Amino acid sequence: MSGTLRVAMIGHGFMGAAHSQGWRTAQRVFDLPVETEMAVIVGRNAEGVADAAAKWGWAESATDWREVIARDDIDLVDIVTPGDSHAEIAIAALEAGKHVLCEKPLANTVAEAEAMADAAARAAARGIRAMVGFTYRRVPAVTFLRDLIAQGAVGRIAQVRASYRQDWLVDPDMPLGWRLQKEHAGSGALGDIGAHAIDLAQFVTGMQLERVSGVVDTIVKQRPLQGAGSGLSGTAAEGFGEVSVDDIAIFTGRFAGGVLGSFEATRFATGRKNALSIEVSGDKGALAFDLEDLNSLRFYDRTAPNQLQGFTKILVTEPEHPYVAAWWPAGHTLGYEHGFSHQVKDLVEAIDAGIDPHPSFAEGLQVQRVLAAVEQSSERDSGWVGVGERTLAHTA
Amino acid sequence: MSGTLRVAMIGHGFMGAAHSQGWRTAQRVFDLPVETEMAVIVGRNAEGVADAAAKWGWAESATDWREVIARDDIDLVDIVTPGDSHAEIAIAALEAGKHVLCEKPLANTVAEAEAMADAAARAAARGIRAMVGFTYRRVPAVTFLRDLIAQGAVGRIAQVRASYRQDWLVDPDMPLGWRLQKEHAGSGALGDIGAHAIDLAQFVTGMQLERVSGVVDTIVKQRPLQGAGSGLSGTAAEGFGEVSVDDIAIFTGRFAGGVLGSFEATRFATGRKNALSIEVSGDKGALAFDLEDLNSLRFYDRTAPNQLQGFTKILVTEPEHPYVAAWWPAGHTLGYEHGFSHQVKDLVEAIDAGIDPHPSFAEGLQVQRVLAAVEQSSERDSGWVGVGERTLAHTA
Amino acid sequence: MSGTLRVAMIGHGFMGAAHSQGWRTAQRVFDLPVETEMAVIVGRNAEGVADAAAKWGWAESATDWREVIARDDIDLVDIVTPGDSHAEIAIAALEAGKHVLCEKPLANTVAEAEAMADAAARAAARGIRAMVGFTYRRVPAVTFLRDLIAQGAVGRIAQVRASYRQDWLVDPDMPLGWRLQKEHAGSGALGDIGAHAIDLAQFVTGMQLERVSGVVDTIVKQRPLQGAGSGLSGTAAEGFGEVSVDDIAIFTGRFAGGVLGSFEATRFATGRKNALSIEVSGDKGALAFDLEDLNSLRFYDRTAPNQLQGFTKILVTEPEHPYVAAWWPAGHTLGYEHGFSHQVKDLVEAIDAGIDPHPSFAEGLQVQRVLAAVEQSSERDSGWVGVGERTLAHTA
Amino acid sequence: MSGTLRVAMIGHGFMGAAHSQGWRTAQRVFDLPVETEMAVIVGRNAEGVADAAAKWGWAESATDWREVIARDDIDLVDIVTPGDSHAEIAIAALEAGKHVLCEKPLANTVAEAEAMADAAARAAARGIRAMVGFTYRRVPAVTFLRDLIAQGAVGRIAQVRASYRQDWLVDPDMPLGWRLQKEHAGSGALGDIGAHAIDLAQFVTGMQLERVSGVVDTIVKQRPLQGAGSGLSGTAAEGFGEVSVDDIAIFTGRFAGGVLGSFEATRFATGRKNALSIEVSGDKGALAFDLEDLNSLRFYDRTAPNQLQGFTKILVTEPEHPYVAAWWPAGHTLGYEHGFSHQVKDLVEAIDAGIDPHPSFAEGLQVQRVLAAVEQSSERDSGWVGVGERTLAHTA
Repeated sequence: MSGTLRVAMIGHGFMGAAHSQGWRTAQRVFDLPVETEMAVIVGRNAEGVADAAAKWGWAESATDWREVIARDDIDLVDIVTPGDSHAEIAIAALEAGKHVLCEKPLANTVAEAEAMADAAARAAARGIRAMVGFTYRRVPAVTFLRDLIAQGAVGRIAQVRASYRQDWLVDPDMPLGWRLQKEHAGSGALGDIGAHAIDLAQFVTGMQLERVSGVVDTIVKQRPLQGAGSGLSGTAAEGFGEVSVDDIAIFTGRFAGGVLGSFEATRFATGRKNALSIEVSGDKGALAFDLEDLNSLRFYDRTAPNQLQGFTKILVTEPEHPYVAAWWPAGHTLGYEHGFSHQVKDLVEAIDAGIDPHPSFAEGLQVQRVLAAVEQSSERDSGWVGVGERTLAHTA
Repeated sequence: MSGTLRVAMIGHGFMGAAHSQGWRTAQRVFDLPVETEMAVIVGRNAEGVADAAAKWGWAESATDWREVIARDDIDLVDIVTPGDSHAEIAIAALEAGKHVLCEKPLANTVAEAEAMADAAARAAARGIRAMVGFTYRRVPAVTFLRDLIAQGAVGRIAQVRASYRQDWLVDPDMPLGWRLQKEHAGSGALGDIGAHAIDLAQFVTGMQLERVSGVVDTIVKQRPLQGAGSGLSGTAAEGFGEVSVDDIAIFTGRFAGGVLGSFEATRFATGRKNALSIEVSGDKGALAFDLEDLNSLRFYDRTAPNQLQGFTKILVTEPEHPYVAAWWPAGHTLGYEHGFSHQVKDLVEAIDAGIDPHPSFAEGLQVQRVLAAVEQSSERDSGWVGVGERTLAHTA
Repeated sequence: MSGTLRVAMIGHGFMGAAHSQGWRTAQRVFDLPVETEMAVIVGRNAEGVADAAAKWGWAESATDWREVIARDDIDLVDIVTPGDSHAEIAIAALEAGKHVLCEKPLANTVAEAEAMADAAARAAARGIRAMVGFTYRRVPAVTFLRDLIAQGAVGRIAQVRASYRQDWLVDPDMPLGWRLQKEHAGSGALGDIGAHAIDLAQFVTGMQLERVSGVVDTIVKQRPLQGAGSGLSGTAAEGFGEVSVDDIAIFTGRFAGGVLGSFEATRFATGRKNALSIEVSGDKGALAFDLEDLNSLRFYDRTAPNQLQGFTKILVTEPEHPYVAAWWPAGHTLGYEHGFSHQVKDLVEAIDAGIDPHPSFAEGLQVQRVLAAVEQSSERDSGWVGVGERTLAHTA
Repeated sequence: MSGTLRVAMIGHGFMGAAHSQGWRTAQRVFDLPVETEMAVIVGRNAEGVADAAAKWGWAESATDWREVIARDDIDLVDIVTPGDSHAEIAIAALEAGKHVLCEKPLANTVAEAEAMADAAARAAARGIRAMVGFTYRRVPAVTFLRDLIAQGAVGRIAQVRASYRQDWLVDPDMPLGWRLQKEHAGSGALGDIGAHAIDLAQFVTGMQLERVSGVVDTIVKQRPLQGAGSGLSGTAAEGFGEVSVDDIAIFTGRFAGGVLGSFEATRFATGRKNALSIEVSGDKGALAFDLEDLNSLRFYDRTAPNQLQGFTKILVTEPEHPYVAAWWPAGHTLGYEHGFSHQVKDLVEAIDAGIDPHPSFAEGLQVQRVLAAVEQSSERDSGWVGVGERTLAHTA
């Protein structure tokens, strides 16, 4: 690697904007050990990706990701395409000796994720790093919550409660986009946002889910086709299509060690816009976080005198808090996008230090296995399914 | 019935204090159609019950509930004993032609609850009324929440999220009291507080749970025996006993019509003191309530302009709100105990009007069946169990 | 005094209902050293007061307060009439050897309040007790907040911020009731609710206000006369009358020792129903309370590690908290009216112990002097006025 | 102007970082009508400013602002130096035909601010634009609050309550930095943060303050000198210096039209980190905002049915909300720094459109006059002082 880390980003949707913000900002805020360079952005549509390059500040644009991966002047590949292409691109990039940052979910299937984790393990042996983008780990309040648990602030964990609730499907007139079709999206609420709740719970507690029992459901089963209204010869019936992914998932997990956790992922929680929340209860205290109130966490300290106990709302904007000192003075809040700068910082530092960053592809695979186990449980009358347990139907 | 409703209360624990407050206060605040008289309180310990009579304002005390039920000058029997005696007393009282108010849970077993519901049905044919004490239905914010749903404020319900979380078992040194022993308590967190969450969810939505899948667990399985430290010959091992009831229950329910609900009842949610909460989401809006913030509810109105949507915190202390006008001016808050006065008011009015009050014994039975189904599901690997579904093991 | 404290209550408006609730309930919840008896309620309208007696549980009713005060079988007089009659009744009762509980404000003028404080001082020498009803001192969260400050929880106080905000005058069509006419009400928002904010600030901090600078204002100066619409010969102009009291008061106070406090009392804070709030900031911490969230207080502990600092929401419903143990289990909330039971408890205990209860008439007088000083400051271009400073105009 | 707006920034402290973030990001998020170029950053210390240039992404650095202003290839001057140099730089830049963005406060004295406003007026006649950096106007929730008021959401305004509370001076060991010395800082809490509260109140209501009455105070009057401990010959007494600026200001303002507003600015509100808050009450509703909860506002709608009224917490993260659509999907929160990108966007659009941006220098001057009037009132026993009223002492 030269003194500069040259980045290629594959994909240019919403996540491309967020990752670009991270690459553009991190070195302006943090003292990174090496410089980063926004070298090239890749997309299938030449005009669209050129516009994105100009808008977001990438030096070049390109349309063939294989050519870009083959270039000597690229050190890192950042993958923000839909999940069904993650495996192919990531494996190719790792094999070409490029570090990889891959948006979550790691892949659309467990098999793909396994192949990716294998590739990452092989690459690591050669000093090539891979990271999956569960960015919420790097919200300062979340990182701090994890640190507090690791330091024993909640004591022995008794239970976990996690959920990710949104409401964008409440409107029955919302059309049948690609995110609601299994062949394109792979999964619904479970894979899209439930994955975050699972990763968050495992990350902050340091415990892995071993077994799950749950149900996935589709509340609104038919939706108007996009553009159906303009069909010339269609009947009313032809204007609707089947929603083939879940829009709500409720499940219970058993962590290694026996602790129970309750989980919910839904796109039907009216009024909840982006409510990823977690509460961890232990014999010394409790910690709670909600993404809609991103700059705060709540800490209940059972070791305080009983008459003074209560949930303390900690504004995680002090210099002592993770990532915060590099930004603004105490009390000045951060937002959603800052996690992407923190992700860049941690990835670049890990590469420079020659250590593996987290979350690793192996961690991403494990989340994928939890998701698969929830789906299997739902198919098996909600009976308990071991995480990683293989059945014919699901390993094909 | 004379112009006065003469009440006998059986039991004099904590619930006796709360019910006494209701009987003492209701007629001082509301314009009841008949007067109520706190005639006699019954307990096994003559001295203890006499003290309770003096303290709480009952005219007499007695030790034999059968004698009291037989008296002509008693119109209503209020049962606040532990659950294992509910069936015997309530059935006897109803058969003696007394109206009955019975604390929840209706009974410790489905079989007992069925017998009670049958007795109540027979009594109703003779103009005798029976009510089970799910008092939280009569918190003004809860009653109002139910009214709003009935009026269509949330539209078609998409999902329900209910939980009752306390933390009094977090301390591992908490001794093994009777509430933690199945032979005395019948059930743990599920039956004690989960029952409230179930009743609340069914009451406010007007929908009944048809099937459940869930798990009950005991987080701390052994606890110090009360007074164990003073044992003369005990070994260390003898100082501990088995907790034979659940202390956490997590389950998913399917309501008639297909709506899913997630439920949790726990005594291990560190920092949550009395957190009975519910959120009902629909295509027109959402409503949320938390018992720790008893005077408020949150309403999200999806029919408002999008840029103005949000959860409105309604302080349920206006004269237009249920029960409130009889109390204090707008903005003056009520507390836990007011539900007991409201319960008396509604019961007395129903008796006077010759109509059946709610929650009926049939409703209490149905909650009992849900509880039994959750326990069955937990025993069956969390597979789905129909509410009211009979198995050999559970109908014995 | 016999073993029973026989109470006469003068007045039967809204405050009569609240005080009756206190007298009825206190001995059913607390272990009072003597019994209390609701002996007689007095009002000018024979029928109205008889109805009140029946409704609220007073043994008798009467129409002549002088006769009642003269009775040997009355031990305590509870005054809940409008402020303009407080002085006459209270002084007569004290001189007749009756203990007195007098609703706030102590009187409508400083001169009357001085005469009452003098009478209370003379009576105290004979073992007769007097208390003024700033009931909010006895909300558990407020009492506890005071205790914490006394124990040094906030350290050296740096500043105080207090306000009492309501919104019932926001509607311009609200008619001109007696509360808006100076000849009847004496004062507006300042005396009615500002008095609570002043007493609260002085009570919890233990510091007295020495000087004030402020402004009082009348936002809506004319209002429709009640019943004006039915006038036979009136013109439109005749249908309105002048509001002669303030409806907003904003002032700054300097406490003994030099600490500044900001104060606001308003009936125009749209959406604030009963928002008496206070925040006390010191070099070790801060404490905050809001009456609309009556069961909680917020404590900020500056002695905690910086990264853990934040406002802790303490649910003041634990047995360790003032007054709470006698009521319900932990986490079960209290309401507005409980302060009246606590007031009875503390008054009866003080009488039994032979000590002066608080708040004394002298404290009530001091609040009155602060109110007068604010009004004077407003008349003098908001220049600073010493509390107790006399001017010709205001001592007449 | 070429198709690119070339920017020079004078100053490189904390505000330099924030403004740099704005210049770097705005064109990556919004579709600006012209490109912006971070051309040169200016500071007195050559090494320091070169480092800042490299870190923050400025093309060049320089040490002489006069030379930079004279350059033909500079179109806009962004001033982030301390307040005492604002007037000289801004006037020179405007006279040199450069657009100017000047951090608040506009200046340290009214006289300087007047000269700047005059210069801006002259420049405007030549198409040169000037803006003062009250960035909080461009927090989406604040902009939206203003829009709602302008649309009549609160009706006729009855009162305003604004405060800016921090706590960084609570620690008595905090040393005597330049911000606490009048000769350097000009003012204390009043000028630094009170200015924001004043601007915010005037901006959102559209009403100007006409008269004020208030008090400024210094709670801790002596503080340890920085580095005093290392003095060779100093005595203990020599280790302390006088705090010559206020650390708390409490004042009442009368807006044009007669509405009252209460204001507080303090650095002693323990636990309040960056609590700029405002509440505007009117006959149709109320709106409230707190900077510590930057993504939300609270709206109380008095036109709703009474039983449904309450404060609605609007998450200002929907595409319909100001500035939001260009950022992330609904529910994804923004932070403190986003206001700087919005400021750039609005300034660049105004320059391109040939219209004057707000807040203008005239608005900055008016805030300065309010600050001066508060100080005068404090010196005059808190008597009322007209905004803009001149006295010999203050116009020198």
